[in-house]
Amino acid sequence: MERIYLDNNATTIVDPLVKDAMEPFFCKMYGNPNSLHSFGTEVHPYMRIAMDRLYAGIEASDDDDIIINSCACEGNNTVIQGVYFDMLRGGGKRDTVATSQVEHPSVMKTFEFLESLGVHVVYLPVNADGIITPDVLKENIDPERTAFVSIMWANNETGLINPVKDIAAYCREHGILFHTDAVQAVGKIPVSVKDVQPDFLTFSAHKFHGPKGIGGLYIRKGVNIPPLIHGGEQMGGKRAGTLNTPYIIGMGLAMELAVKNLPFEATEVRRLRDLLEDRIAAIPGTQVIGKRELRTPNTILVSFEGIEGEAMIWDLNKQGVAASTGSACSSESLEPNPALVAMGMKDDLAHTGVRFSLSRFTTEEEIDRAALCIQKAVERLTAISTHGR
Amino acid sequence: MERIYLDNNATTIVDPLVKDAMEPFFCKMYGNPNSLHSFGTEVHPYMRIAMDRLYAGIEASDDDDIIINSCACEGNNTVIQGVYFDMLRGGGKRDTVATSQVEHPSVMKTFEFLESLGVHVVYLPVNADGIITPDVLKENIDPERTAFVSIMWANNETGLINPVKDIAAYCREHGILFHTDAVQAVGKIPVSVKDVQPDFLTFSAHKFHGPKGIGGLYIRKGVNIPPLIHGGEQMGGKRAGTLNTPYIIGMGLAMELAVKNLPFEATEVRRLRDLLEDRIAAIPGTQVIGKRELRTPNTILVSFEGIEGEAMIWDLNKQGVAASTGSACSSESLEPNPALVAMGMKDDLAHTGVRFSLSRFTTEEEIDRAALCIQKAVERLTAISTHGR
Repeated sequence: MERIYLDNNATTIVDPLVKDAMEPFFCKMYGNPNSLHSFGTEVHPYMRIAMDRLYAGIEASDDDDIIINSCACEGNNTVIQGVYFDMLRGGGKRDTVATSQVEHPSVMKTFEFLESLGVHVVYLPVNADGIITPDVLKENIDPERTAFVSIMWANNETGLINPVKDIAAYCREHGILFHTDAVQAVGKIPVSVKDVQPDFLTFSAHKFHGPKGIGGLYIRKGVNIPPLIHGGEQMGGKRAGTLNTPYIIGMGLAMELAVKNLPFEATEVRRLRDLLEDRIAAIPGTQVIGKRELRTPNTILVSFEGIEGEAMIWDLNKQGVAASTGSACSSESLEPNPALVAMGMKDDLAHTGVRFSLSRFTTEEEIDRAALCIQKAVERLTAISTHGR
Repeated sequence: MERIYLDNNATTIVDPLVKDAMEPFFCKMYGNPNSLHSFGTEVHPYMRIAMDRLYAGIEASDDDDIIINSCACEGNNTVIQGVYFDMLRGGGKRDTVATSQVEHPSVMKTFEFLESLGVHVVYLPVNADGIITPDVLKENIDPERTAFVSIMWANNETGLINPVKDIAAYCREHGILFHTDAVQAVGKIPVSVKDVQPDFLTFSAHKFHGPKGIGGLYIRKGVNIPPLIHGGEQMGGKRAGTLNTPYIIGMGLAMELAVKNLPFEATEVRRLRDLLEDRIAAIPGTQVIGKRELRTPNTILVSFEGIEGEAMIWDLNKQGVAASTGSACSSESLEPNPALVAMGMKDDLAHTGVRFSLSRFTTEEEIDRAALCIQKAVERLTAISTHGR
C-alpha cells in the first residue's frame, strides 16, 4: 500500500521537473558563477532566468532585491538581526520591535536573542479568529517607539492568513519597517510584494516543491541592512557564499510552477482539503481550528479531544499516513502546539493538535483513504485513552 | 576540443558517485528529517552514515560537534560573530582578536564587521615564506589580551600551508580560542582535528567534489558559541533550518572519497602540478609564488611579469583553459591579488597573479595542452603588452 503524504507544510516533494532542471549543474555545468572563464559564465543565462522567475513569482520590481540564501530561517535571521545592527544599537527614539505569538521558531528565537541583547520586544496576541490585524498592533505597540514589525503571511500550523496588506499600510504610515515571513503563503495563495508592499519578505523553496536548503529574502528598493553572512561579493555583497547554482535554478522553476498552479490550489487542492476536513469534522469530539475561509487552501489543524497529538501521529504513521503535530522545526519537543496556546486553548487541549497539509500532488483517492485511517485511529485511541472523551 | 578546468580552488566538479548518492532524496525520500513519521525517519540511516563519514574524515571525536550549514562563509561568520556575542561584548580583559592578512573574504570582512563594532582586530602579516607561524603571533599580539585567533589551514591563492598545529598549541597554552578555515585543506592534505586540536574548523563540500551550498563547522567538545541562525532544534539548536538531506548525504560521501584519494593527491595530482609548474617556470619572466614543499599539492600561483592577470585569464579562456586571478569570491573586482600584496609585492606585480588549481579529475593530457596554451598566451600578450618585459 502506497503511503500518503499529508505533511506538506513541513516540506514537499521536489517536482520531478525541478529535479530535471537541476541535473546538468552538478557534473556538467559545475563552474562557480563568480568565475570569469566559460565554466563560470556559461551558467549565467540559466541563473538569470531563475532570478527572473523569482522576481515575477512575487511581483517584485527590478529595483528591489531578492537575496538568495540557504533557507527562510536564514532570511528571517538576516532581517531581524540586521535591523538590530542597523537601527537598534544606536539607541534612538525607536527602541521597540514587535512580532506575534504564533511566529515560526526562526522568527521567535531571533527576537528572543534580541531581547537577550536588551531590545524591547512586544509579542502580539492573536485575535478571536487567530489572526493579527492592524487593530491588534494599535492596541499593543507605541507606533512612535516601534522600529520594526514582523508578522507571518500565513501560519504554518493553522494556515490562517494575516491581513498583511493592512498591516504593511499601518506600518508604512507610522514609519515602521515591516517584514513578513511568507514561507507558508508562496505557492498556496497569491503573494505580491507590489500589492502588499512589505519592506522584507522571506520564502523557502522546499515549501513549494523546490529543494531543501535554498530560499530567498526580498528587500524593497531603498531599504538597507547589513549582511548576516559577510564575505564575498555574491548577491551584491549582501550575502556571501558560493552560489548554489543547481538549487537556484531549481527554485526559479519551482516558483514559476507554483504560481502557475495557484488556480489549482484555490480550486482542486481546496476541494480535497475541504473533503478531508468535512470527513474529520464529522468525527465526534474533533474541533478544526480557524475559519475555513481565513486559511490557506491546503491546511487543516484539528484537535482530537482527549487524544495526544503524538499518539495520533504514530497511529496514522503505522497506517502509512504522514501528518504532524506542528512545525517540524520543533517536532522533537513534546510541547503544546504554540498556535493553539496563543488561541487560548488550555494546555491539555493544546497537546491534541494534529496538522494535515495537502499539496498539488495529493489525490482524491489518498484523501479518501486518509479519512478512513483517521477515523480508525480516533476509534482505537479513544478506546485506550486515559483522558476519556 | 574539450575545455580544461584548472580552477579547482574556486569550485570542483561534483563527483558522479556523489550525484548518484543524492538522487533518491529529491523525489523519493523527500521527507523532512525532523518529522516524526516514516517519510522523516526513513532518511535517518543515510544521514547517520553521512555524519559518520564527516566525523571520520576530519578525525573528530563523537563528543565534538560538526554543525552542518550552507557553506564555509557561514561557518566562518558563525565562529567569528559567535565569539563576539559570547566573549567580546562583556568587556572583559581579553578584548583583542587576530587573523592574518591573507584570509578569505568571509573571514576578513567578518573581522572588519567586528572592528566596526569596536573590537580591536590585529591583522597578522605573513613571514618571508608567505605563511603565519607562532613567531608571527608572538611578535604581533598580546596573548593575555587576545581572546581569539583565526588562521586558515591552507591559503586559497597560493596553496601555502600554515603550521596550524603549532599555532593551535600556542593558542591553547595562552587560553586563546583558535579557529582554522580548512576549506582549501580538506581533500588536498590530511586534516585531523585530533592531531591539530583547533577549537573551530570550517569546511565546504564544493571544494572536494561535493555540491555547492553545504558545509560544516567543527566545534571542539566543551566549546560553546551562540548560533548565527536562530530557530528550530536542528543541529542541537546550534543551526536552524530544514536539513538539506540530499546535500548532506552527498557531502558525507564526498568527504569519504576525498580522504580515500589523499594518497593520490599527494602523488599523482602533485606530479601533474609539478609538471605544469616546471613548464610554466621555464617561461622567461615568470615567478611561482611560495616554496613548492610548503604548498598543497594542487595549487600554483604564478606572476607573469608585465602581463595583467585578467588578460591571461581571458586569453586562456579563449583557448578553453579555465584559471583565475584569485578568489572567485572577489573575482569581480579588479584589485591586486591580496596574497601577493601581503607577501610584499608591488602593486603592478600583484596584478599579474594567475592561479592554476588541479584536482583528481585532471589528466596529464590536459596538463600538456594547458602548458602549451599558457606558453602561447604569454607570447601573444607580451607582444601587445604596454608594460614591456
